[in-house]
Amino acid sequence: MDQVRIIEIKESIFANNDLEAERLREKLKDEKTFLVNLMASPGAGKTTLLLRTIAMLKDEIRIGVMEADIDSAVDAEKVAAAGVKSIQLHTGGMCHLDAGMTAQGLDEFGTKDLDLIVLENVGNLVCPAEFDTGAAKNVMILSVPEGDDKPLKYPLMFTVSDVMIISKKDVAPYFDFDVEACKARARKLNPNIEIFEVSSKTGEGFEGWADWLRREVKAWNGEAGKSVSMG
Amino acid sequence: MDQVRIIEIKESIFANNDLEAERLREKLKDEKTFLVNLMASPGAGKTTLLLRTIAMLKDEIRIGVMEADIDSAVDAEKVAAAGVKSIQLHTGGMCHLDAGMTAQGLDEFGTKDLDLIVLENVGNLVCPAEFDTGAAKNVMILSVPEGDDKPLKYPLMFTVSDVMIISKKDVAPYFDFDVEACKARARKLNPNIEIFEVSSKTGEGFEGWADWLRREVKAWNGEAGKSVSMG
Repeated sequence: MDQVRIIEIKESIFANNDLEAERLREKLKDEKTFLVNLMASPGAGKTTLLLRTIAMLKDEIRIGVMEADIDSAVDAEKVAAAGVKSIQLHTGGMCHLDAGMTAQGLDEFGTKDLDLIVLENVGNLVCPAEFDTGAAKNVMILSVPEGDDKPLKYPLMFTVSDVMIISKKDVAPYFDFDVEACKARARKLNPNIEIFEVSSKTGEGFEGWADWLRREVKAWNGEAGKSVSMG
Repeated sequence: MDQVRIIEIKESIFANNDLEAERLREKLKDEKTFLVNLMASPGAGKTTLLLRTIAMLKDEIRIGVMEADIDSAVDAEKVAAAGVKSIQLHTGGMCHLDAGMTAQGLDEFGTKDLDLIVLENVGNLVCPAEFDTGAAKNVMILSVPEGDDKPLKYPLMFTVSDVMIISKKDVAPYFDFDVEACKARARKLNPNIEIFEVSSKTGEGFEGWADWLRREVKAWNGEAGKSVSMG
């Protein structure tokens, strides 16, 4: 495995992020690349969830991971060690990625020979919710230790996400987290949100999440997917 | 206890936030009001820590709490129920407070007859670190479930904080959290950072944190503090 590349992303020059996001989404559709924008608080377990997801799916789906952070390359190094293509994006202090920044990252990364690219956004429940990255789907993780009231306090994040993953279920006995109340709060904001309950430590609940990814990648890229380069 | 007031804070009009913050800090010094800016990720336990701190100190220090959130008033209601003056600030989607926004909140809240005001900032490790609120001290909480690598990924937050509180120590047996590695990472960014390790559930470690507050309030406000209004 090569050393992880670190790309310094520049603040986007596009005035109309929604338009830019729509353009990027169409391009990725044409290229048969399913881009997932993965969002969560710092420490919710985005990277750990990704590592288990990669272990389950890497023999059937060609996965790449773009890690976005203010600083450090610790996440991209972990993902690279798991045996999938990865790159570290540094946001220059910015609290989110927009579509232009995502496109810069994808240009450097390369989408060829990948069916699924996961963009691990900056750890933050506020800013990333405000910017369409151009991803096909938004997925957010809420970990049990954060508390079941988060949909009340960060409503936009739950409104813009296609999927909520309730993570760290293995430590639920040590926290007062009302799963049903949390799900009801998320669904009040977003009646169509898909919800999975998982533990990245034990693997509980991963089959449902992996099946969702299989189904969505297939629906986006078509049965055949892109032709594999033999070069 | 009156119903909690909710104030909609407007985006600040001041071009030079550092200057505005310095002005506010001088005003609070003259008024003998010690303002603490409390920052953390969503779900790190800011409000729960505050509730135990209030229970310990409210009979010796006159405390007020300003809760800043994108939405909801759940935190301010909890603090009001604990028997101290509180107000809810809504940031209109903004991921942080700057000095102008803090001053707006203080004007509505009133600082008379309060020795210590805690500003509970928006749950976020990125944006709040970038804006001086005018507080006398910055305090940040890192909870055990978030992981010991956070100083590597959000360095500015640890650089600008006078105090790091490692919270949720009671669940440490269920997480891989290297306390010494975490402290070393924080001190590498900020050699003078004061560190307390606490559990808001059991009360472990609260004496050190409460003593720090007692000492700092006294140093800022003077032995006598402000004269108590008898009106």
